[in-house]
Amino acid sequence: MDAKALTAQILQRCEVLSHCSDVPGQIHRLFLSPATRTVHRYLTEWMQEAGLEVRTDPIGNLRAVKRSSNPKARTFMVASHIDTVPNAGKYDGILGVLMGIALTGKLSEEDLQHHLEIVAFSEEEGVRFQQPFLGSSVLAGTFQPEWLKRKDASNQSLAETLFKWGLDQNRIPLEAYEPRELLGYFEIHIEQGPVLAERKLPVGVVSGIVGQSRLNITFLGQAGHAGTTPMPMRLDALAGTAEFVAFTEDYALRNPGLVATVGKMDVKPNTSNVIPGQVTCSLDVRHLSDEKRLQAVQDLLHEAHMIAQKRKLGLQHELPLDQKAVICEDRLMESLMEACDFCGIPAFTLPSGAGHDAMVMAQVTDVSMLFVRSPNAISHHPDETVLFEDVEAALKASGQFLNHILR
Amino acid sequence: MDAKALTAQILQRCEVLSHCSDVPGQIHRLFLSPATRTVHRYLTEWMQEAGLEVRTDPIGNLRAVKRSSNPKARTFMVASHIDTVPNAGKYDGILGVLMGIALTGKLSEEDLQHHLEIVAFSEEEGVRFQQPFLGSSVLAGTFQPEWLKRKDASNQSLAETLFKWGLDQNRIPLEAYEPRELLGYFEIHIEQGPVLAERKLPVGVVSGIVGQSRLNITFLGQAGHAGTTPMPMRLDALAGTAEFVAFTEDYALRNPGLVATVGKMDVKPNTSNVIPGQVTCSLDVRHLSDEKRLQAVQDLLHEAHMIAQKRKLGLQHELPLDQKAVICEDRLMESLMEACDFCGIPAFTLPSGAGHDAMVMAQVTDVSMLFVRSPNAISHHPDETVLFEDVEAALKASGQFLNHILR
Repeated sequence: MDAKALTAQILQRCEVLSHCSDVPGQIHRLFLSPATRTVHRYLTEWMQEAGLEVRTDPIGNLRAVKRSSNPKARTFMVASHIDTVPNAGKYDGILGVLMGIALTGKLSEEDLQHHLEIVAFSEEEGVRFQQPFLGSSVLAGTFQPEWLKRKDASNQSLAETLFKWGLDQNRIPLEAYEPRELLGYFEIHIEQGPVLAERKLPVGVVSGIVGQSRLNITFLGQAGHAGTTPMPMRLDALAGTAEFVAFTEDYALRNPGLVATVGKMDVKPNTSNVIPGQVTCSLDVRHLSDEKRLQAVQDLLHEAHMIAQKRKLGLQHELPLDQKAVICEDRLMESLMEACDFCGIPAFTLPSGAGHDAMVMAQVTDVSMLFVRSPNAISHHPDETVLFEDVEAALKASGQFLNHILR
Repeated sequence: MDAKALTAQILQRCEVLSHCSDVPGQIHRLFLSPATRTVHRYLTEWMQEAGLEVRTDPIGNLRAVKRSSNPKARTFMVASHIDTVPNAGKYDGILGVLMGIALTGKLSEEDLQHHLEIVAFSEEEGVRFQQPFLGSSVLAGTFQPEWLKRKDASNQSLAETLFKWGLDQNRIPLEAYEPRELLGYFEIHIEQGPVLAERKLPVGVVSGIVGQSRLNITFLGQAGHAGTTPMPMRLDALAGTAEFVAFTEDYALRNPGLVATVGKMDVKPNTSNVIPGQVTCSLDVRHLSDEKRLQAVQDLLHEAHMIAQKRKLGLQHELPLDQKAVICEDRLMESLMEACDFCGIPAFTLPSGAGHDAMVMAQVTDVSMLFVRSPNAISHHPDETVLFEDVEAALKASGQFLNHILR
């Protein structure tokens, strides 16, 4: 098949799998849900058609291998995930898995200097057990046994869920890769952001996955009657928070590559005729440079303290998440960019602002990613889409990239 | 009794009535609740002891009159309310009723050029039927018959509530005063604000009750991923709202006598990793000058539009409340200030930022009010309190004031 026909097949398969859902009329497929069985059946068939050996591993990942006859062969992995958020789109995760399968069709066993493994991770979104990356963490050796006790919404544990699916939790540790066994990792994913669309580019080579700090910041004032308390006598927690939100936006605009978001705000008592006595807001800070991210968190907290001090407000904060950035490996990035050039596709690099399985796999091997443009930047939503020509471009560039890596 | 003994008696009675509650351990006495029966029994006894004729009117107000023998006598009313908010303090409303009763003890019938009526309004807070001022609206002739259909939390209508108490709703229109029947209205109330406490003053002569505009303002942006959406590409509804909150605070600080409060904020989707797509905030604007209040509303809305335009956000607003200011009558205010002077009490005037029954009664007669300092500005709360010496000062000044008006 040529690239156009393969692209058409990939998009057709995205459609087919979009109907494997646990909620009729929506795309809703949590980790190891009933609909996942059907997805496994389809994927197994397509993987076998592509000449891959297929098995399900103990966390429910579908693992499909095309082996090299080279005795010194290591494994190069092409992967993404098959679970979705509730009421999702057709492409997040699944596109990368189907493209991985399509790419193997072009490679014969004889050509391979290294093993090629296509993985359909069973879990990335973290919806069912409120713990993301269950699938990739097993391969990276970072799976924590205590996660087996986590319960889903129906109070069923992860351990019980694995057992009912016919999986053996005791075999989980055996699946952890050693770094020496792996040549690298590659993931194709929709961008989920507006950068490629804004620049009218079909694909982007990912430079890394930004680190993330998540804070909760509370301004403590004094609730008071909105009519009887003159302005100069107020200790208005919301006015202080508003000043902080404005500063945060301005600070992030002044620091290229930084994003800082106040997405959540809880006002107490939240009544139109009472001066807010307490406001807690979230603060999400991300940057590809950990140094710049930590500097931003420090600067923003300093400003919060200054605002609180000036306004005679109390200030509290907590840091529930502090996650380092992952940098995509130079050689793999360069190969990807050369592959783009070779195919006549602009070789544009951008960081990923969202987390991906690549972030977890980076703990055990070199990683690389290719983003496919998200028209309108819509993801995690039924309107999520991709353009035919972008998928075709990604397929060509990835094929060229794999040829270079594996032959 | 002298002023000290009377003050002690008033405060003792506040204590007694604080135990008439529908929630054990709290002060919680909604309109015509079971505990109100006990309050009516106590008040009736104390009113009769003070030589007043007592009756319950069709909305459940206790009406106590000391008549003048003057054939041209009109009625001067001293009143406040006996209902409370949930988990209230001991003084809001009830203090004014008990002081009214105490003041009548000093006046003999022969002395009176005019009738004196003490009213314990059954409803002011608006908690039970979400409609404030039920008591005073009947006397002012502004009671709306459709309010009878309003339901309380247990789905009982106001009409049914009146019937069960033994009241005749058909007699409500008969209780409306004609302006010519009334000489004026006087209400003693705790300040519920920090002004007198800040200035170390026992009492304040109220200059008027501020008008109030209440708005809901919605900024419409575009929800987006907090990681993948670069700062310059955002349409962040919360950042726009924060700018508006900051402007509002600054505007009110620059305009003496104005208070403007954003007390409520609803952020959607209110998740730490999503850029807010929609934020609705309340805006409460009050000033004693209606012209200045309306100008402020216009200026603040203009700014909201400018912010929205600059940020490419949508803007919607609604105005659920637009209430005119009430100015206390000059002659009554002057008499009150002279009475303060006479008693050696500083004659300080201040506007009321909160609504009171006086606001409703102003529609049918001249009104006046005296505020008693709220230490720590705490009201609508169990910690609400008054100082003995402040109540004594208010009693002396009010006694002198009534002597002047009625003799």
